[in-house]
Amino acid sequence: MTIPETLRWDGDSLVLLDQTRLPGELCWVTCTTPAETAEAIRAMVVRGAPAIGVAAAWGMALAAREARALAREPALAHLAAAAQALTAARPTAVNLAWAVARLLAHASGTAGDGAVLAEALVHEARQLHDTDVATNRAIGQAGLAVVPDGSRVLTHCNAGALATAGYGTAVGVLRAAHEAGRRLHVWVDETRPYWQGARLTAWELVQLGIPATLITDGMAAHFMARGAIDRVVVGADRIAANGDTANKIGTYGLAVLAAAHGIPFYVAAPRSTLDPVLPTGADIPIEERPEEELTHVGGRRLAAEGVGVANPSFDVTPGRLIAGIITEVGVLRPPFAPALQAALSASSASYTAT
Amino acid sequence: MTIPETLRWDGDSLVLLDQTRLPGELCWVTCTTPAETAEAIRAMVVRGAPAIGVAAAWGMALAAREARALAREPALAHLAAAAQALTAARPTAVNLAWAVARLLAHASGTAGDGAVLAEALVHEARQLHDTDVATNRAIGQAGLAVVPDGSRVLTHCNAGALATAGYGTAVGVLRAAHEAGRRLHVWVDETRPYWQGARLTAWELVQLGIPATLITDGMAAHFMARGAIDRVVVGADRIAANGDTANKIGTYGLAVLAAAHGIPFYVAAPRSTLDPVLPTGADIPIEERPEEELTHVGGRRLAAEGVGVANPSFDVTPGRLIAGIITEVGVLRPPFAPALQAALSASSASYTAT
Repeated sequence: MTIPETLRWDGDSLVLLDQTRLPGELCWVTCTTPAETAEAIRAMVVRGAPAIGVAAAWGMALAAREARALAREPALAHLAAAAQALTAARPTAVNLAWAVARLLAHASGTAGDGAVLAEALVHEARQLHDTDVATNRAIGQAGLAVVPDGSRVLTHCNAGALATAGYGTAVGVLRAAHEAGRRLHVWVDETRPYWQGARLTAWELVQLGIPATLITDGMAAHFMARGAIDRVVVGADRIAANGDTANKIGTYGLAVLAAAHGIPFYVAAPRSTLDPVLPTGADIPIEERPEEELTHVGGRRLAAEGVGVANPSFDVTPGRLIAGIITEVGVLRPPFAPALQAALSASSASYTAT
Repeated sequence: MTIPETLRWDGDSLVLLDQTRLPGELCWVTCTTPAETAEAIRAMVVRGAPAIGVAAAWGMALAAREARALAREPALAHLAAAAQALTAARPTAVNLAWAVARLLAHASGTAGDGAVLAEALVHEARQLHDTDVATNRAIGQAGLAVVPDGSRVLTHCNAGALATAGYGTAVGVLRAAHEAGRRLHVWVDETRPYWQGARLTAWELVQLGIPATLITDGMAAHFMARGAIDRVVVGADRIAANGDTANKIGTYGLAVLAAAHGIPFYVAAPRSTLDPVLPTGADIPIEERPEEELTHVGGRRLAAEGVGVANPSFDVTPGRLIAGIITEVGVLRPPFAPALQAALSASSASYTAT
């Protein structure tokens, strides 16, 4: 079995693989409006920074199709409203705002009425979708530099095909190494409270035939101390100008533990995850998710009644704990401020060729 | 509501609060034989190092009652067999072996036939049971030295009343501080895979009226970095001569994270948890629990089929990461080798008075 497409455009609607039901059930959710798309993003039917970026791009295409009978100005106003709703669906991953802004700019830059804009935005969303897959493959190739034969890699959450339009970022790096014939062992944190490791990454690795061991989030240090883990590769939701990286809650702790055990810690992400406007990670908004993600399991209350709950969905890993950021234009190394600047101004082709 | 008794002797059987069903259901399991007691320990109906020690002591009393019609030698042989079965139920916590050995030695040292031994062992188990509660209260008093007013304490797993014959060790320290009128905020790790934090510690803290916030195991570092946690207090399952401490999986990672954030890390445990025969923690056997604890939740498979699983139930925190070991004879400070020796040779009274 192969990994089904995370999201696809069927001509007039966006079809999402429902990631809340994986791996037990394979089912799909169809979005025909930008509001449905925003709700699917909020409810984590589709999740992962690159994937929600691509989904939001299609959400903008759906908004443009809603406005295709309108004149240019009302069509643009409709797009601006949809952009706001889509961007507000989840606050931390910058890819979402980046993709929406890109589609909105494309509309502004395209002469014509609603019908023209609708066609243009479907085309642009398709471009962004296809580029994401190509970008991930390039990240995978760049990552070969840091995952030699015999690597024993810990990953956290899901930065795989399911977190993107296809192939994956952190898991894409592992996949590229596996496809290159390198022997790997992958340690998968279950990633409470949403189980992306146990449900999604473990599932992808089984499909790919990459040997993997599932552990609880609290076990990573134990296996680091035993010498069973020799590198960490994770994805990212937003990277500030100095390399500070927001990613799934638990990432920062792993980075501290990796440093304490002398294990290099890598982030794999497309350049659309970079947010050079933010000087440091202190300015990254951290989404707080519902209490029920901790208190209930499988619809039943597990935690004691009456206890307080905190549920930040992301944390920020300081750039100083990161050995390299694996992008589609190569592995960026510290100091990250100039490296990120150079990566943003590089053309993909020039870097990919190196 | 108060916290029900973890275990009680009803005259001819041992009644255990079924901790696998808490906090949703309050129900009890009755053990009338040492084999049933060993099975209840293995199945974690009763868990927590001091509690399984006391339960095993009652298991030995049940064995002695089974042998009460026998002559001395066959009665002692029956006790030796029961001792072996009880000790084998779980390997990591030394309190279990310690309690069983103590009851066995008491039998050897008592002149008389099976009837006499039965009476003696019930009496000795009662002694051990009552001593555990008194010991925990003394640990709580000793711990006042390290939990000042306004403390914001992280704890892991459950080292509360439910992990003991009553009052608790790490939670006992928090309880003593709370009873002394100190304001506390407690951060509770949910403690995958068995949820002792979410199910048991959160429940105890709610009953005690101590403000508490439940977090996933991966969130601790995030809140440490934000300055929301200023000390860590955990229990222990076995402490080697140099202070190396086996405790619930995840503890070692918290100790590394605490050190990285300059946060003192304390262990609270009775002297029965000390194992001076072991020079270091490298020699502590680590129990591996069933895969299903990770792959299934609420009886349903959650993790992807086909993925490997590791499930060590404990890890070992090096003594160098521990600021103090809170015992019934005071807070032991590094270097731990001489401090542990002194604690073991001290009489309780002399220390408790200081």
